Amino acid sequence: MAKAKKSSKSAKKEKPIILITNDDGITAPGIKALVEAVKDLGKVVVVAPDKPQSGMGHAITIGHPLRLSKVENYGVEAWQCSGTPVDCVKLAVDKVLHRKPDICLSGINHGANHSINVIYSGTMSAALEASIESIPSIGFSLLDFRLEADFTGAQKYARLIVQHILAQKNDKHLCLNVNIPAVDIKMLKGAKICRQAYAKYEEEFDERNDPSGKKYYWLTGEFVNFDKGRDTDVWALKNNYVSVVPVQFDLTNHELKDKLDKNWNLDPKKR
Amino acid sequence: MAKAKKSSKSAKKEKPIILITNDDGITAPGIKALVEAVKDLGKVVVVAPDKPQSGMGHAITIGHPLRLSKVENYGVEAWQCSGTPVDCVKLAVDKVLHRKPDICLSGINHGANHSINVIYSGTMSAALEASIESIPSIGFSLLDFRLEADFTGAQKYARLIVQHILAQKNDKHLCLNVNIPAVDIKMLKGAKICRQAYAKYEEEFDERNDPSGKKYYWLTGEFVNFDKGRDTDVWALKNNYVSVVPVQFDLTNHELKDKLDKNWNLDPKKR
Repeated sequence: MAKAKKSSKSAKKEKPIILITNDDGITAPGIKALVEAVKDLGKVVVVAPDKPQSGMGHAITIGHPLRLSKVENYGVEAWQCSGTPVDCVKLAVDKVLHRKPDICLSGINHGANHSINVIYSGTMSAALEASIESIPSIGFSLLDFRLEADFTGAQKYARLIVQHILAQKNDKHLCLNVNIPAVDIKMLKGAKICRQAYAKYEEEFDERNDPSGKKYYWLTGEFVNFDKGRDTDVWALKNNYVSVVPVQFDLTNHELKDKLDKNWNLDPKKR
Repeated sequence: MAKAKKSSKSAKKEKPIILITNDDGITAPGIKALVEAVKDLGKVVVVAPDKPQSGMGHAITIGHPLRLSKVENYGVEAWQCSGTPVDCVKLAVDKVLHRKPDICLSGINHGANHSINVIYSGTMSAALEASIESIPSIGFSLLDFRLEADFTGAQKYARLIVQHILAQKNDKHLCLNVNIPAVDIKMLKGAKICRQAYAKYEEEFDERNDPSGKKYYWLTGEFVNFDKGRDTDVWALKNNYVSVVPVQFDLTNHELKDKLDKNWNLDPKKR
């Protein structure tokens, strides 16, 4: 009896704190699907933007104050924030949790964040911000941007991956970019560790005139993959694998650094 | 005579197009200092935000249209845009230049963008966006955020580095993060190729009450350097060198990718 009590107490003590955020806003079906998928794996706390913040990249709010308010009837402890996804992570640690969570999850995003999208994505920037803070983090994105998207397959893999990561000792700055193909759950072949494909958007702005005759521009663009590698996220997703790309916040191009260093003559010591 | 004519024609043809943007806005002294420093090195065209966009990271404008308008009496061709620094680069290529510029410069930023700042910085995100488009690019930042900062040293090195880069064959995706110490020009020891230091902000939000008693939060934070390396941008700047960090948009953590791959059991083919 005493033993059972002790183990239950220690199990309780060890229950991980799972911070969840996103960039589609706290009311998006994707974040609710993520909460449902993992809520029995730890103590879940949601701190998410009060409005859509897609494409915000790693923006932070400077020069304006932030608001934070509790959301009732959310199923788990939930807070909405007036700022960006990155602001949400910073505020969650300092003012909601008053400590670092054991893991930070972001998503499930409505739409792809594979390849170059990682750099524009508020979902992935929130995850990357957590990893700067030495909080293991995972961003999840489903390749279906519709509100009524089917999150069943994404939920299954989100749960599997979170369990896998929580069960092992992780790299201090672990950050995973997980994308899930928009296919029936039965078609999913597994989750594959990949690298970011070299792809980009071929942009074209749609030029229009407002009622007073003044021009305005809508961003449009076509995603073009230049990368033929079979180890990329784009390849994995096309072949019905969930793609898992470990990402980092050190942007140094070490290869180019070594190259430039050889021909550099603006460091007087090297002349 | 014919020969002289030909070489003058070919020199004219080869005059590089230099796109300049920033994140402090088109009226900031820093961007004007950059234009002055390089305007005789090519045909300079400015496309910059119509208001301050610091901390915007790699944000793009989705769900709202953009405005673009010509600015008169700027000294060179200049356009202001209602969007983020990244939007400026995209619009400049598609709607102002109708081609890729030969180089894209961003800045001179009022304040440091060394180390982890690279990820929050609109200045550096504009440069990185250009490099995604295979346009060689350089972001410049002075470690003095005041409007009345002295840009003399920054201008000297901006010019030297742009000349150096324009004179050589460059990596397709060359992108340099250049920071200049806020010291007298005579104190500057040269420009050094570096890596991004591992540093971060220790955040603390300043909590206040508005007149109606509702809480709001101001982001504040102290920059803390954890990196003792002498090859970092932080070290270079402390020692009165201009720091030059080559950066990239491939966020894949290749080292972690190899590590994770070994213990990964969610790819059925590997079981």
